[in-house]
Amino acid sequence: MKKLFYCIVLWMAFATLALAKGPKNIIIMIGDGMGINQVQAAYTQNGGHLNMTDRCPFVGLRRTNSANSYTTDSAAGGTAIATGTKTNNGMVGMTPDSVPLNSIIRLATLKGLSTGVIATSSLTDATPASFVAHQPSRYMQEEIAADYLNSDINLFIGGGRKYFERRKDGRNISEEMEEKGYEVVYSLAEAKDISGNLGVLLSEDGMEPVDKRENGFLANATELAIEQLSENKKGFVLMVEGSQIDWSGHNNDQEYMVGETIDFDRAVGKALDFAEKDGNTLVVITADHETGGIAIHGGDYDKKEVTVKYTTGGHSASPVPFFSYGPGAEQFTGFKDNTASFHLMKKLLGIK
Amino acid sequence: MKKLFYCIVLWMAFATLALAKGPKNIIIMIGDGMGINQVQAAYTQNGGHLNMTDRCPFVGLRRTNSANSYTTDSAAGGTAIATGTKTNNGMVGMTPDSVPLNSIIRLATLKGLSTGVIATSSLTDATPASFVAHQPSRYMQEEIAADYLNSDINLFIGGGRKYFERRKDGRNISEEMEEKGYEVVYSLAEAKDISGNLGVLLSEDGMEPVDKRENGFLANATELAIEQLSENKKGFVLMVEGSQIDWSGHNNDQEYMVGETIDFDRAVGKALDFAEKDGNTLVVITADHETGGIAIHGGDYDKKEVTVKYTTGGHSASPVPFFSYGPGAEQFTGFKDNTASFHLMKKLLGIK
Repeated sequence: MKKLFYCIVLWMAFATLALAKGPKNIIIMIGDGMGINQVQAAYTQNGGHLNMTDRCPFVGLRRTNSANSYTTDSAAGGTAIATGTKTNNGMVGMTPDSVPLNSIIRLATLKGLSTGVIATSSLTDATPASFVAHQPSRYMQEEIAADYLNSDINLFIGGGRKYFERRKDGRNISEEMEEKGYEVVYSLAEAKDISGNLGVLLSEDGMEPVDKRENGFLANATELAIEQLSENKKGFVLMVEGSQIDWSGHNNDQEYMVGETIDFDRAVGKALDFAEKDGNTLVVITADHETGGIAIHGGDYDKKEVTVKYTTGGHSASPVPFFSYGPGAEQFTGFKDNTASFHLMKKLLGIK
Repeated sequence: MKKLFYCIVLWMAFATLALAKGPKNIIIMIGDGMGINQVQAAYTQNGGHLNMTDRCPFVGLRRTNSANSYTTDSAAGGTAIATGTKTNNGMVGMTPDSVPLNSIIRLATLKGLSTGVIATSSLTDATPASFVAHQPSRYMQEEIAADYLNSDINLFIGGGRKYFERRKDGRNISEEMEEKGYEVVYSLAEAKDISGNLGVLLSEDGMEPVDKRENGFLANATELAIEQLSENKKGFVLMVEGSQIDWSGHNNDQEYMVGETIDFDRAVGKALDFAEKDGNTLVVITADHETGGIAIHGGDYDKKEVTVKYTTGGHSASPVPFFSYGPGAEQFTGFKDNTASFHLMKKLLGIK
């Protein structure tokens, strides 16, 4: 009788702890410009399957307005996700009054977790910059590159080499980072055997579109980053951006959009593979805004065809989707502001 | 010691039962043609507030394709929600092979629950018809009216009097329903003191648009229906349609669209008011499809302004939003097929 009693008390204690415990790792996946119709188009042309739609039990919607505009740009949109604060369009990692903000990546670093960012754009572009840099203008790309030097981030993979190495001020940020103990290399192949702090610069500015860059680059980079960052027993926070879904929207180019969204989803698949095995990783997938103002006007799952109409070469103000998987994932559903995710992630990581 | 042990066992048993228990009542709210951008537009013009967005903790997305078309109509869309089965566009409450299907309303009736439908269209229109009737064509509106006679539904409020009373076959369905014990009246005011089975026919065909019909009609009708149906101690299932969000989309009329969506949301508010007080009511809010293929191109929460672009006078194939509140609400999140809700509701009501 007494034994049974103690068993029950122990079971209740464990259950309470398990429910209260947040994830050890968080992987933030941002499809830049990826609204629900981009997802639906890719889902259809992929034959009625995507990792983000099929493997994430929780879905939410996010309002995207910035501090000074109903329709956000990627700088304010990225800053809202990264820091939980609305700023003006064009600003990265700062309040509208230019006060620097700690991103979830920075807070994780301060807590002893490993951190990384990956993008198919330049690493100095608005979305990755929002997680790493603090500048009043997204176009200050050399200043943003220099911010990587002081960020203590453990890993960065993407384009933008010229902002690090061929600068107006003559500095070579890659060399300065190597002096700080980073290894900076110029291909994923070279990166594979490196276990310390790592920068991979793959193109002068943004990377090539999906049909011209290394097949599966984003998925491969995500896998490599997870492998390296997960060596830290305290955990890690990684941000992966499918940057060019947005660019395809600005071009009103449907094949480019679907190709980039499916490519992004392959990276999502790698994140979910790890999270499923690990059991202690939260994966959140969202967008900063929708690009193209698209509507879907027909399709065929069997023929993998879809008909899309664009209403703009710019951004729209549609709410964007939010998919989540893993410990705490249920907290991300609902119709919320784009600043909400930061506060939820911070709480789940036990950061005060 | 023994007492504490029994307390713990009792607590665990209660907790298990509480978790397993479904809702007693379900209120299904359908905004016909209400995509996420209709919601965002109404949310903005309402000053950054709606009942469905602010009071529902769970959000999902639904794919809308019908059995024979990637872009659904309201008949197949309504039938998917009502019966959990995809049918061909134009068909109501039947498989593509014309086999009649039991809707969630019918299954609730068979289980002894009270049931009702409300619409601002004709009651013989596609969405309410999907819950009550079985016809190979949505345009067989006199046949659909006759199906009400055999439905055992307890309450119906909406337009469509001519399909009941001024028919080619000379029958008067209203009189036949009165012979079966229904009271059929022609205003909400007359309906208030009636406690038995009730039909309220408010216009010859569809009702007037929101700015011309009784102010707050849909909210008032929802409140009246809940008051009457909740007298059944076994519970109730009620379907409420904001029918004309769709019509405004066909007209590409933004003010009509926002007016109808906010009007629908007032009815949602009445359902949520009851569910909050009752504690045992599930409220689900969704759409059959999106109409107009709209995108949002700017707005202002303070000025209550929004700029919308239409891409069609017909339906689009965008995924539609799904909001939920109450016991079991968490099961409706995720990116799911439009047939999923029926099966979840059936399970939650304990129907095999």
